[in-house]
Amino acid sequence: MPDIFSAHRHGDESITLRPETTAVLVVDMLNDFCTAGGAMVLPGGEVLYGPQNALMDAARLAGMPVAFINDAHRPGLRQDREFDKRTPHCMEGTWGAEVVQELTQGPDDLHITKRRFSGFFNTDLDLTLKDMQIDTVIVAGVVTNVCVRSTVHDAFFQGYKVIVPEDCVAATGPREQISSLYDISNNYGIVSGSAEIINALGGDGVVMNREIAE
Amino acid sequence: MPDIFSAHRHGDESITLRPETTAVLVVDMLNDFCTAGGAMVLPGGEVLYGPQNALMDAARLAGMPVAFINDAHRPGLRQDREFDKRTPHCMEGTWGAEVVQELTQGPDDLHITKRRFSGFFNTDLDLTLKDMQIDTVIVAGVVTNVCVRSTVHDAFFQGYKVIVPEDCVAATGPREQISSLYDISNNYGIVSGSAEIINALGGDGVVMNREIAE
Amino acid sequence: MPDIFSAHRHGDESITLRPETTAVLVVDMLNDFCTAGGAMVLPGGEVLYGPQNALMDAARLAGMPVAFINDAHRPGLRQDREFDKRTPHCMEGTWGAEVVQELTQGPDDLHITKRRFSGFFNTDLDLTLKDMQIDTVIVAGVVTNVCVRSTVHDAFFQGYKVIVPEDCVAATGPREQISSLYDISNNYGIVSGSAEIINALGGDGVVMNREIAE
Amino acid sequence: MPDIFSAHRHGDESITLRPETTAVLVVDMLNDFCTAGGAMVLPGGEVLYGPQNALMDAARLAGMPVAFINDAHRPGLRQDREFDKRTPHCMEGTWGAEVVQELTQGPDDLHITKRRFSGFFNTDLDLTLKDMQIDTVIVAGVVTNVCVRSTVHDAFFQGYKVIVPEDCVAATGPREQISSLYDISNNYGIVSGSAEIINALGGDGVVMNREIAE
Repeated sequence: MPDIFSAHRHGDESITLRPETTAVLVVDMLNDFCTAGGAMVLPGGEVLYGPQNALMDAARLAGMPVAFINDAHRPGLRQDREFDKRTPHCMEGTWGAEVVQELTQGPDDLHITKRRFSGFFNTDLDLTLKDMQIDTVIVAGVVTNVCVRSTVHDAFFQGYKVIVPEDCVAATGPREQISSLYDISNNYGIVSGSAEIINALGGDGVVMNREIAE
Repeated sequence: MPDIFSAHRHGDESITLRPETTAVLVVDMLNDFCTAGGAMVLPGGEVLYGPQNALMDAARLAGMPVAFINDAHRPGLRQDREFDKRTPHCMEGTWGAEVVQELTQGPDDLHITKRRFSGFFNTDLDLTLKDMQIDTVIVAGVVTNVCVRSTVHDAFFQGYKVIVPEDCVAATGPREQISSLYDISNNYGIVSGSAEIINALGGDGVVMNREIAE
Repeated sequence: MPDIFSAHRHGDESITLRPETTAVLVVDMLNDFCTAGGAMVLPGGEVLYGPQNALMDAARLAGMPVAFINDAHRPGLRQDREFDKRTPHCMEGTWGAEVVQELTQGPDDLHITKRRFSGFFNTDLDLTLKDMQIDTVIVAGVVTNVCVRSTVHDAFFQGYKVIVPEDCVAATGPREQISSLYDISNNYGIVSGSAEIINALGGDGVVMNREIAE
Repeated sequence: MPDIFSAHRHGDESITLRPETTAVLVVDMLNDFCTAGGAMVLPGGEVLYGPQNALMDAARLAGMPVAFINDAHRPGLRQDREFDKRTPHCMEGTWGAEVVQELTQGPDDLHITKRRFSGFFNTDLDLTLKDMQIDTVIVAGVVTNVCVRSTVHDAFFQGYKVIVPEDCVAATGPREQISSLYDISNNYGIVSGSAEIINALGGDGVVMNREIAE
């Protein structure tokens, strides 16, 4: 059961997937965050590759767009205010800013460049999704509690229905993983798993919100 | 110590307050969230009134703007997509959408109306702060893990230095309070307390980042 | 015939009005711009009242939302960068910032506050229209070549179909009126008249683009 | 003299250039708009190359950033709503979307991709300029009455001081050129010429607003 404040949501929620209005967003699966030698590597992030590849395969088969949302920072700027807070990373044109090779990319996949944590902040993501008549997004990637979560926030504010498959996102620690999923399931969208989503695509399309423990 | 990913930040951080470029943002201290009888009341939120009033008093005395960032929803819309997820609340023109009477308001305080969780989303907050040459914001209010946090995200993305006084924000539960503060202190700004901020305003202006336990 | 560059548009264009997805936007019909004694009055603006009232009546009768988009500037800001360029006007709470009394307002009309020329810039207009499933806007108001035009630009960028009724907008001079209508008809939407729109609402809904002379 | 409405601006305006806070924006100088064989070529646009190259040379010498703002449309989208109105153009990866070879590019020049007419709409232009502490922009390019003008609008709304050098922008016709310059000089910024700007950079930095005939 959620706490008394969070409980003020619509109960037993579900989202019914329609492939023609749904997209998969894969956030920051880049060498700098995922591969040994990267600028700020999340330990254990490689467990995401299998579920993410399965999810993307099913999406492409169903005709759904897959968009890689990739952090990139312009080299040579006088100042990049994100680096006032965080170590430099994902410099445009470097290996660190590339999608990890373990993920399969399709010929029609989209690539969106972002400059801050959220995939929607000062990018063409919203415009491109609305051009494509997308109203539902499935969000995967790293890290759950920073870039994934920021992207989920803005997706909800912009009116998208949001699904986060638990096994396709990883946080900086167990408390942050469950806390962000709890907030997402209660305030921004629904939490599910890659298998449930893939099954829904092959069936009636219904994905249920998982209850995340308080 | 933060986890290995979050640790990739600039260490021992501080922000030096300058009253002429700093503003206090008070998020969603409204009857619907704080007062018995409101639409979705956060239990115990009244502990914030004392520290928030002290912080605002010190800010006004120092000549800093105070802005109340208030959720409000237009009555009679065919649809309000926030209500697809959450119970209706803060209807424009109702008691629930008013700032709680326990907080002192000053004659020059600003009021910003927001329609979604973040105070920056489709509002004039950024424009107004930049018109006033503000580059640093102190963010107070409820709830830490939803509206406060969303506002902090966007403030950081827009280039503001961000300070969150721990005793001026309340979450939906203890795990969410510490998890959001942990993320804020590592990725978006610094966490401090109202007393430290008030002392800094009367002294050298330096506010240190509190280490939040992993 | 348009010039050779502008001619690269889809020819003989029309928009088919559907009342459930169309809204009327009335921009800046405020005392400061329209009424003797206002801060910067457009001479002759009163010719708009008749066609605008007729258009709004027909819209309300058809169940279409009418939104007044009103410029307002916060008093007491340290600086308002619009006033670096233009004389102060439309101060919030003053007579100058009120809609002219000659226009009829309905009980369900929306009011959107804007801080810059465009009705979409840092306001909740796009969010509110999308909440209401609006995809087509009819834009009336003053002045054609500044606030109306800026609003038309952003409406088109955001994906709305745009109709400007020629007799419901007035510019600062005849050259600016025809030049802005020419650009709108070739690049942003279609130009028509209030009578054609009202007729369309009572008939097949089709509104044709008027050819504006080069 | 401007008309009675437009005249409500600050008179005899000037902007004092400071190289460390000024950038040159070159809008849409792309093959599809400028070179024989392009998708929608503006006749005579080649007269801009000389003044633009001189302006950019002077800017780079003074240490000012030069940013090419380039329209680009994603191939293979289900729909691109700009193409509901305009002929397809500037497809990403094609010759038509490349900057004309007659313009000199420097190794530190920035490239900003835009999807709609305005360089600021859903791009990282504002963020990047603010990261670089730019508060003044000199805007050159094509066409004055569409993409240049839309970019000027948003630059002003975002708080930048705006200078448009008359000989570095070309419109779709003489009426549109003078009408857009008139509006810019009265409502959005100042109009000057490349020689005056280059002289100012070598002298006291002062650029005066040209009076554009009513």
